[in-house]
Amino acid sequence: MFAHNKRLQYTVRVSGPNPGLANLMLEQFGGPQGELAAAMRYFTQAVAEDDPGRKDMLFDIATEELSHLEVIGHIVAMLNKGAKGRLAEAAEEEAEMYKSITGAGNDSHITQVLYGAGAPLTNSAGVPWTAAYIDSITEPTADLRSNIAAEARAKIVYERLIALTDDPGVKDALGFLMTREVAHLKSFEKALYAMEPNFPPGKMPVVPAFASVYYNMSQGDGEMRGSWNQGPDWDFISDREKQMAVDGGSGEAEVALPNEDIDILQQMAARTISNPAATPRTGAELGMMQSGSGGTIANAGDGSKGQATVASMGGPLDDTGIGNPMGSGKSLK
Amino acid sequence: MFAHNKRLQYTVRVSGPNPGLANLMLEQFGGPQGELAAAMRYFTQAVAEDDPGRKDMLFDIATEELSHLEVIGHIVAMLNKGAKGRLAEAAEEEAEMYKSITGAGNDSHITQVLYGAGAPLTNSAGVPWTAAYIDSITEPTADLRSNIAAEARAKIVYERLIALTDDPGVKDALGFLMTREVAHLKSFEKALYAMEPNFPPGKMPVVPAFASVYYNMSQGDGEMRGSWNQGPDWDFISDREKQMAVDGGSGEAEVALPNEDIDILQQMAARTISNPAATPRTGAELGMMQSGSGGTIANAGDGSKGQATVASMGGPLDDTGIGNPMGSGKSLK
Amino acid sequence: MFAHNKRLQYTVRVSGPNPGLANLMLEQFGGPQGELAAAMRYFTQAVAEDDPGRKDMLFDIATEELSHLEVIGHIVAMLNKGAKGRLAEAAEEEAEMYKSITGAGNDSHITQVLYGAGAPLTNSAGVPWTAAYIDSITEPTADLRSNIAAEARAKIVYERLIALTDDPGVKDALGFLMTREVAHLKSFEKALYAMEPNFPPGKMPVVPAFASVYYNMSQGDGEMRGSWNQGPDWDFISDREKQMAVDGGSGEAEVALPNEDIDILQQMAARTISNPAATPRTGAELGMMQSGSGGTIANAGDGSKGQATVASMGGPLDDTGIGNPMGSGKSLK
Amino acid sequence: MFAHNKRLQYTVRVSGPNPGLANLMLEQFGGPQGELAAAMRYFTQAVAEDDPGRKDMLFDIATEELSHLEVIGHIVAMLNKGAKGRLAEAAEEEAEMYKSITGAGNDSHITQVLYGAGAPLTNSAGVPWTAAYIDSITEPTADLRSNIAAEARAKIVYERLIALTDDPGVKDALGFLMTREVAHLKSFEKALYAMEPNFPPGKMPVVPAFASVYYNMSQGDGEMRGSWNQGPDWDFISDREKQMAVDGGSGEAEVALPNEDIDILQQMAARTISNPAATPRTGAELGMMQSGSGGTIANAGDGSKGQATVASMGGPLDDTGIGNPMGSGKSLK
Amino acid sequence: MFAHNKRLQYTVRVSGPNPGLANLMLEQFGGPQGELAAAMRYFTQAVAEDDPGRKDMLFDIATEELSHLEVIGHIVAMLNKGAKGRLAEAAEEEAEMYKSITGAGNDSHITQVLYGAGAPLTNSAGVPWTAAYIDSITEPTADLRSNIAAEARAKIVYERLIALTDDPGVKDALGFLMTREVAHLKSFEKALYAMEPNFPPGKMPVVPAFASVYYNMSQGDGEMRGSWNQGPDWDFISDREKQMAVDGGSGEAEVALPNEDIDILQQMAARTISNPAATPRTGAELGMMQSGSGGTIANAGDGSKGQATVASMGGPLDDTGIGNPMGSGKSLK
Amino acid sequence: MFAHNKRLQYTVRVSGPNPGLANLMLEQFGGPQGELAAAMRYFTQAVAEDDPGRKDMLFDIATEELSHLEVIGHIVAMLNKGAKGRLAEAAEEEAEMYKSITGAGNDSHITQVLYGAGAPLTNSAGVPWTAAYIDSITEPTADLRSNIAAEARAKIVYERLIALTDDPGVKDALGFLMTREVAHLKSFEKALYAMEPNFPPGKMPVVPAFASVYYNMSQGDGEMRGSWNQGPDWDFISDREKQMAVDGGSGEAEVALPNEDIDILQQMAARTISNPAATPRTGAELGMMQSGSGGTIANAGDGSKGQATVASMGGPLDDTGIGNPMGSGKSLK
Repeated sequence: MFAHNKRLQYTVRVSGPNPGLANLMLEQFGGPQGELAAAMRYFTQAVAEDDPGRKDMLFDIATEELSHLEVIGHIVAMLNKGAKGRLAEAAEEEAEMYKSITGAGNDSHITQVLYGAGAPLTNSAGVPWTAAYIDSITEPTADLRSNIAAEARAKIVYERLIALTDDPGVKDALGFLMTREVAHLKSFEKALYAMEPNFPPGKMPVVPAFASVYYNMSQGDGEMRGSWNQGPDWDFISDREKQMAVDGGSGEAEVALPNEDIDILQQMAARTISNPAATPRTGAELGMMQSGSGGTIANAGDGSKGQATVASMGGPLDDTGIGNPMGSGKSLK
Repeated sequence: MFAHNKRLQYTVRVSGPNPGLANLMLEQFGGPQGELAAAMRYFTQAVAEDDPGRKDMLFDIATEELSHLEVIGHIVAMLNKGAKGRLAEAAEEEAEMYKSITGAGNDSHITQVLYGAGAPLTNSAGVPWTAAYIDSITEPTADLRSNIAAEARAKIVYERLIALTDDPGVKDALGFLMTREVAHLKSFEKALYAMEPNFPPGKMPVVPAFASVYYNMSQGDGEMRGSWNQGPDWDFISDREKQMAVDGGSGEAEVALPNEDIDILQQMAARTISNPAATPRTGAELGMMQSGSGGTIANAGDGSKGQATVASMGGPLDDTGIGNPMGSGKSLK
Repeated sequence: MFAHNKRLQYTVRVSGPNPGLANLMLEQFGGPQGELAAAMRYFTQAVAEDDPGRKDMLFDIATEELSHLEVIGHIVAMLNKGAKGRLAEAAEEEAEMYKSITGAGNDSHITQVLYGAGAPLTNSAGVPWTAAYIDSITEPTADLRSNIAAEARAKIVYERLIALTDDPGVKDALGFLMTREVAHLKSFEKALYAMEPNFPPGKMPVVPAFASVYYNMSQGDGEMRGSWNQGPDWDFISDREKQMAVDGGSGEAEVALPNEDIDILQQMAARTISNPAATPRTGAELGMMQSGSGGTIANAGDGSKGQATVASMGGPLDDTGIGNPMGSGKSLK
Repeated sequence: MFAHNKRLQYTVRVSGPNPGLANLMLEQFGGPQGELAAAMRYFTQAVAEDDPGRKDMLFDIATEELSHLEVIGHIVAMLNKGAKGRLAEAAEEEAEMYKSITGAGNDSHITQVLYGAGAPLTNSAGVPWTAAYIDSITEPTADLRSNIAAEARAKIVYERLIALTDDPGVKDALGFLMTREVAHLKSFEKALYAMEPNFPPGKMPVVPAFASVYYNMSQGDGEMRGSWNQGPDWDFISDREKQMAVDGGSGEAEVALPNEDIDILQQMAARTISNPAATPRTGAELGMMQSGSGGTIANAGDGSKGQATVASMGGPLDDTGIGNPMGSGKSLK
Repeated sequence: MFAHNKRLQYTVRVSGPNPGLANLMLEQFGGPQGELAAAMRYFTQAVAEDDPGRKDMLFDIATEELSHLEVIGHIVAMLNKGAKGRLAEAAEEEAEMYKSITGAGNDSHITQVLYGAGAPLTNSAGVPWTAAYIDSITEPTADLRSNIAAEARAKIVYERLIALTDDPGVKDALGFLMTREVAHLKSFEKALYAMEPNFPPGKMPVVPAFASVYYNMSQGDGEMRGSWNQGPDWDFISDREKQMAVDGGSGEAEVALPNEDIDILQQMAARTISNPAATPRTGAELGMMQSGSGGTIANAGDGSKGQATVASMGGPLDDTGIGNPMGSGKSLK
Repeated sequence: MFAHNKRLQYTVRVSGPNPGLANLMLEQFGGPQGELAAAMRYFTQAVAEDDPGRKDMLFDIATEELSHLEVIGHIVAMLNKGAKGRLAEAAEEEAEMYKSITGAGNDSHITQVLYGAGAPLTNSAGVPWTAAYIDSITEPTADLRSNIAAEARAKIVYERLIALTDDPGVKDALGFLMTREVAHLKSFEKALYAMEPNFPPGKMPVVPAFASVYYNMSQGDGEMRGSWNQGPDWDFISDREKQMAVDGGSGEAEVALPNEDIDILQQMAARTISNPAATPRTGAELGMMQSGSGGTIANAGDGSKGQATVASMGGPLDDTGIGNPMGSGKSLK
């Protein structure tokens, strides 16, 4: 069961309102590397985990991430507090409001009008948080590696946010949050390496013949060798022929079908064939209104021709008000 | 700050494994009316709320919903526990595994292969949870109504899940969860009506001329009057003419444009006109290969004709193996 | 069946082009609280509704919301008309075009380049409309409450848009649309309360023991009591022990499993245990290249050290052109 | 099998860094009409295609589109190269960094903080690419038309990007990419018209009675006739009565149900009826705190009244620090 | 403005309830090729269209598609009517309800529990409708082609649904809907070809050198020539060297950067280099706990070894109840 | 540039059609851990990468993953080949078709009707692929860890698919694909550890005071210590007081605001207060139609009462045909 205390895990002191910065901070509130993603990643793993040590650790860290979500949410809320009041009370002249909400350095309007300068679960571009960000698959040798990677990403996004603001209170709280990601990363590393063995992940053995091959698929200038593809551990294959059909077969796909299916497929093939012997005239050629080859498309979109067409038309184009503009500006439908 | 205790808010006793039922239970774990949606709805409102009474209440209820998320998650995990082991250990014969995972009454394979019989944040159809489910807009007269509605919906989905299972332990826990939604609903009602006034929502006054009109837009057999559109409070308008341009204007849209824009729009109009005086031949007509009108499309897709076409074709259809089926079943590419 | 007349329900008179404002208006065109959401919410409810009074009302209001979608769409189209022509005709110098499309106060480029200054079904952040915004569940005591809440939200977003523009024609049309949300809200209230009883929602009775309890889950400074958690209707519980396992059980989750499943789970447990007795060396420690404890991470990311590493490297770093910068600016790959 | 060479299909020469422009270019990298959409559209069709001619063509064009994805990706990467370094190294003063990342004409911050000035698969608004953009349905008479349309759209988006930049190298590469879309469009046209017949799409014959009718559903000022609804091919129907129930039936929906279902539905109808004879008092009326009709809503949200309410309240509003502001600016929680 | 009449455009007569079939029908209600997609596609184009002929046509067809949405919605509602009542009234025994909702041939439970056997805007897999399905870009030479393709796709999906049901009333209504797609397709063709010229789409001329080239990117067995890549219109290029850097340049990407950026990039390069001269020990190797090469991974996941590990462990594994299974089935946490 | 050869990297030999299995295989085609995700993950990293060694490696592996996408796609296509023909040609009786497409063990109908038994980019639940699955952030110390984790996950999903099928050809190809994930994982490990140091990720130093603390947030039965939270590297904190406000501050959030903002916020607070001193009557109470406390909700939804209400109603309920059922089954609207 969760319990809550209104004291934050880390004190938030914001120097002044800044909805543009608030909007960027959403990255770690409702963004893919943010605290909700972290909390839900570990919480859902904890729920399904059977190993008592990992289960305990996952609940510990999930609970802390929820507390971080609360910290970053309060940073957003404090940065937005002035904007929230002005929006709710319609306290400014309209032109002033429009200017402040869309001003340079402030992109918060894409989240603010809709969400009222609150703390929505979106990233800084207004994209709603989705559980597609969570990649847990209920196998610890994979999930722990995913957790390690997730903490690394979160650490980096915090770096970037810290580099963007000179508000000392915001910087301070972000520094704490950034550091905690590293501490969690270390715990996940320990839990992973406390599985013996933990590599390769999962249970099923690999096929030895393909486990140490490096296929040099991208060739040309810029190739480089390193420990990732050279040395005694690697069989480096550059020959294109040896990269294909590596099982020694035909490299084709086939399926054994009952005769009935084959009959139907023949019928479908006959009905839907693009006849290679045909030299059809196409809609594109109709649309070009031109005699020549389809190759060089000269004069396409020639404005004067279109203009002429308009002149001879009987249609009610004038009704749009476009046909007869006069004076310096007029109303169009 | 959040804290966690490993005891659940409600004890979960599951009679036996049932991954098909587990899959349905996901509706309230990662579905739109589920506990994550509830928890995040109230938590994000709490973070941005300035009224101390509501802020406290929202944190109370958000924290309880997180605890409910934990309860429903454990129901899923218990129902899935057997399936999880068999999947992880590849403990069954393949055909048996395939059968058990796709068997009648068990649709869990759409979530199970991917998520390993864990507790993923999807609904029962495998759709990942999205913050688009949360409709908070940081205005209490709207958000409290949204919360009331959300609790009502959650109550109903629990009703349906309760009606689907005869596992007494699952039923019991679901009954608790269902009831708590009603209790929360009552709290939100009180907090809403403790705002005086709370209707109409927000701050800006409405336009009196349109606030009590009911436009009878759907006509024909089946019309019915009731307190929602009759009585002294309503001005009921059925006349189609009086439903249009209700401001007394033209009912058209117009914008005043500078001359330069008008010139450009004229140019665009000329370039892009669909000439009403033209009687063009179209690609569809080319594609019909038929003499008649475009109206009646007889014999389109006549199989025998297509067959004939195939017979005369010079293309390498045989390469697909379709041209020469023999024996009772063969391999196709 | 739907019919259409080209006169709008409300005349749209826009003072001049303003693609930045057009972009904000998308909130009510393709946004979560917008008119498509409203129209589809009521239309889909109407289709599945069996109660003749509600069915008629839902079709009435759905049809009006479609007509509102048309009004707000024309506001967007008029505000965008100039931009549309300039974009389609590439009528400006490139630098001018870039400046006008990305200028201060104009964020429309995130929708404009892709959608051609038309009327796309996105919100102001460019997020495509999704049916995840619609929360109907085909139970009237829930759906009517959802509709009431949805109208409240839409009213507020219109407030905010009205507060943002001083174009009198836009303001006027938005005032009509805002007011109609309130009128619809009143109809839904009447239809809800014409259900007797309508509370609690749905059919299934709640569990009396848990229906009037308020769990004080969030404690610490800032707690406050009000009608939502005090008075004779409420049983207020602050004791953490009494908040857990409220059924009187263990607060644990359990499932009865066949022995075969237990065997498999034991096997899985053995294979995947994170050994609490192990003190493994981890990849993170390898990655630190440091002797000390994992605790204090001093000097990590020390630039000069990295620089030294580069100096001794045999790899073809120079090929990137980074190794030898000269002159005042050069081309990099 | 795919192979890769590090030489691009088209050389990319960018005049200088411009992250704002990079952001717009994402439209064709991870946007709906972009190169990933094109490549995956044709690749997935190729995989499932049985006709050897189309299969070959689809693999040809899919492979080229992947190569285009690489070209547009490198344009993005080059435009972002300076920003990437500054962000990664935190090389600027914070205020400078904030200003540069959110400056006028640069909206890249909505993608840059999160994605590190790389080449993310989003459109210019930061919306992640989704396979919902791909509309293939594995029927060539439909898929080829979809491909033709997709190439047309991609051509237009390139037009718009070309119109936005005066960087000659970017313009040059975009011109190549734009042209290739037209070349592909021509190939798809040929392959479509080499199916004889290809119209109507698919196999099943249409119902002659409804194949040449044009229902004039939108009436009023602005109607216009053209080849799309006039001439011998069309039966033009404006009479509203003749547009409904065109099968000659009742225009109603019905289903034959077993008696048991009818009994249950009766029970549901009775339980959920919105009683048309009721004149209920509603929550909205409670919320108005006003004696009058629900019609005119005057003075709603009157600030002074609310102020009075506050004055008499016993609650701890002062705790928020709002009750007693003094000095010129203070800290709020 | 839209108006509505309760008579459907086509009478719906359903022979009996069938929620499994209802679920499949959702494909054309809330699926990508369905009627909402069609209606919104044409409606949003109509709103932004300036050409009076197309604008009128688009409103005509959009309105008819809305009426089709209503028809297919009623088919869904009628097929679901029995299920709706049973679910709402919890009228069956739980085991019966579970069986009926998850029975063979009935996959409706993935939409039914959540949506109450109503008419949700999802496809048959429960994926919510998204405006990402709509590909309009406000340029008629592209949008009309997109519309033609969309109608073709919708026609095919109707074919498939017709082929799946023997309910004569459903078949009849689907036949009408399928036919109307073809009629609309013909109108869009006429409107497209009434634009003279309409090819290539848009305004900007293509680059002649690349407009008629066919790059033979996919080689090997299975290649085939046809009108799409052979004949006088095409320049067919198979030589890989001539497919790369077709502008005659280096095929590389480059950008001119100011010196300051170069300095920063050098610093970043030094910090982040993967040293090609290093032969690091990796976490994976730690995780293998094996002396041999990284190549052959024998015995990974050896169960007996893991078992041994368990035996020597001091941790509280027994607390999970796994350590001591006895009797024929027991409860696990 | 990419080139393609029609030979697959691995030969695909499928024993017979099986659309249910095809549907499960989609997990690795268009699912989150599938080959498109892998290919795009590495390709987009390669495009933005500046380090020549990693850039080369990323292009190598991206290209191989594309080739794997082709292999798994062909497995899907072969398993679906019979179903595709029958669907396209409507070759079966309708009832037969319905049965085969929705039969036990075959859930492919949720992808098949829409996608025509092709190879759509969805997972096995029909959820379209989204770039939200890709977590690259353009920082190698994070991205390489993400890649390692992604390969681990993909390996596991292949394990599960292999465990589900006894088709030897499918098993064989899946074994190859599974093994290659491990080989790639090893390359990414080498490239990561060839960065010296690579931990902590990124550049910015952490805050020493918080880098080695473990907050024991989840307490109660089931706690366990291990190397992840015990030993000299960890400072283990269980005291709740020491977990809050760990900076030593108040644990509150505050922002310094200008007086004008404070005035507006006071106004908002007064307008929107939920008065703690009020004891309002609520809509829920109106809706209960009951005198008693809100606590025990007895008899809610009492059917007989509703029945009585129906009996006295003057409304046209009979029009639904529900009022008068007779005979054994009838048609309902």
